[in-house]
Amino acid sequence: MNEFELIARLTESLPTNASIVVGPGDDCAVIDLGLPDQYVLLKTDAVVEGVHFTKATEPENVGHKALGRCLSDVAAMTGTPTHALVTLALPDKFDADYVGRVYTGMNALAARYGVAIVGGETTTNPGRMLISVAVLGTVAKEKCALRSGAKTGDAVFVTGELGGSLAGKHLNFEPRLAEAQWLAGHFSIHAMIDLSDGLAGDLRHILKASRVGAELLSDAIPVSRAAKVARRTESPAKTPLLAALTDGEDFELLFTVAARDAVPLLDAWKKQFSDLPLACIGKITGEGGLRIRDKKGVQALAADGYVHFQKS
Amino acid sequence: MNEFELIARLTESLPTNASIVVGPGDDCAVIDLGLPDQYVLLKTDAVVEGVHFTKATEPENVGHKALGRCLSDVAAMTGTPTHALVTLALPDKFDADYVGRVYTGMNALAARYGVAIVGGETTTNPGRMLISVAVLGTVAKEKCALRSGAKTGDAVFVTGELGGSLAGKHLNFEPRLAEAQWLAGHFSIHAMIDLSDGLAGDLRHILKASRVGAELLSDAIPVSRAAKVARRTESPAKTPLLAALTDGEDFELLFTVAARDAVPLLDAWKKQFSDLPLACIGKITGEGGLRIRDKKGVQALAADGYVHFQKS
Repeated sequence: MNEFELIARLTESLPTNASIVVGPGDDCAVIDLGLPDQYVLLKTDAVVEGVHFTKATEPENVGHKALGRCLSDVAAMTGTPTHALVTLALPDKFDADYVGRVYTGMNALAARYGVAIVGGETTTNPGRMLISVAVLGTVAKEKCALRSGAKTGDAVFVTGELGGSLAGKHLNFEPRLAEAQWLAGHFSIHAMIDLSDGLAGDLRHILKASRVGAELLSDAIPVSRAAKVARRTESPAKTPLLAALTDGEDFELLFTVAARDAVPLLDAWKKQFSDLPLACIGKITGEGGLRIRDKKGVQALAADGYVHFQKS
Repeated sequence: MNEFELIARLTESLPTNASIVVGPGDDCAVIDLGLPDQYVLLKTDAVVEGVHFTKATEPENVGHKALGRCLSDVAAMTGTPTHALVTLALPDKFDADYVGRVYTGMNALAARYGVAIVGGETTTNPGRMLISVAVLGTVAKEKCALRSGAKTGDAVFVTGELGGSLAGKHLNFEPRLAEAQWLAGHFSIHAMIDLSDGLAGDLRHILKASRVGAELLSDAIPVSRAAKVARRTESPAKTPLLAALTDGEDFELLFTVAARDAVPLLDAWKKQFSDLPLACIGKITGEGGLRIRDKKGVQALAADGYVHFQKS
């Protein structure tokens, strides 16, 4: 049983109540607490030494990543993060200066987006550091972007450049909060997710939730320089394109809009975010499954992201 | 630097924002999200294998304890828990049935109090299981009980019987949510905390936050049968009274009310909660510090709970 199968099994029977708009399974849970125009968003995530960072990682980056992963999920709903709770599980022998620097990284990111850190529990985790973060945010009810809203004919967009995040970006990425809020303010976002498992895997989450398929254009997928460099030196068998499709932890936004919005969106984006690429990488199809078009024609995309490479 | 000193250092400079009514340092953070009559409560806590439970612990009890600790903190504010987020960090080799039973325990407790579990992340923690839980709740603005409200002359009350929790109660305690809400509905609770570090240590948290002292009556402190039995067999040097004063994880409520409310409260409590003892154990004093009165007179109480015994 892999991680996703276990989550699926466990979340089948979780207790619920009348306030739940969207339960487990999207980037955040969406809750109606009784605010007139807004939903509350909730998300938790953890980073673990030896899994998400190493002893050699700069502690400021550890803190940044721990909080940033949750903020990226809030961005994927077009939300605004407001509060964070932090549980720091420390090995028996810990360096207080190191821990202070973890908080320096976390605090700087929180302060930049107006997020209050309202709890800082510590506990013991013999052997390794673990940081669990829970984030609360809000989102305008009519703007909240789910995974389930993609429609046949939609254009599929992705921000930034993909692949090779482990070369460094996974530690200092900027959650796309400003971009997501701008998108929600100017266009009708049908479906959105942040890229954590890899483009192919995360797009499949949208396709499954929306009960549609997609066709990607091979040449349109933005491949990062890190993916190109890494693949030449470390893993020649994995092409840069495959890296862009399947590497995890890009923390970019993947979303769909109506086809008629595609060109106006690209034009407006360039004026607003001149330093961050936005690429139209394909379209949503009524036919299920994920396909990719290149010079040779259209092929089913077997590579489905992180889970696939764990198994192989 | 011990845990409390580290927390104090880290929480000095946490980012904040205008919504914070009470930040880190009380049982829950208290937030004004814009609801007309209610504040939002936020709390996070974690349990770790080998620290808070063992491999031999029944998994249902592990789940119960992981969620119950947070619910007890919500009770201490007289709040109502509404939503929980769970991060389950699993060793490389885990037993899916064991994990399912952890959720069975957690879900049963959540369902009993109408708490929706809206996120169930899993991650890897090589070597041991760790469960981090974050809880959101609400509380009527005028009822929210803080640690800082104790006043000179107040009567000090505690629910249940104290000490010896490690003999079993720490795994299957019932968070005092119903009791706390009833208290808030019928009496003016000046200050409240849940007992996690031990009576003496937790009372000191109230005294520090309220800038007052207290005098306890030795004979009035309710000592659990587990504390009496455990001390005879395991730790004869620690008297049952000292166990009741300093053992952790009682998860009972410690609170203060005006002296004039003491007798009416005891009378009304007996009718409402005939199965759960309530004891008036002393009074709040203008003179700082914590003292205890017995047949020999009044003595300063040196035993200050869990931290003290870690050091000795």
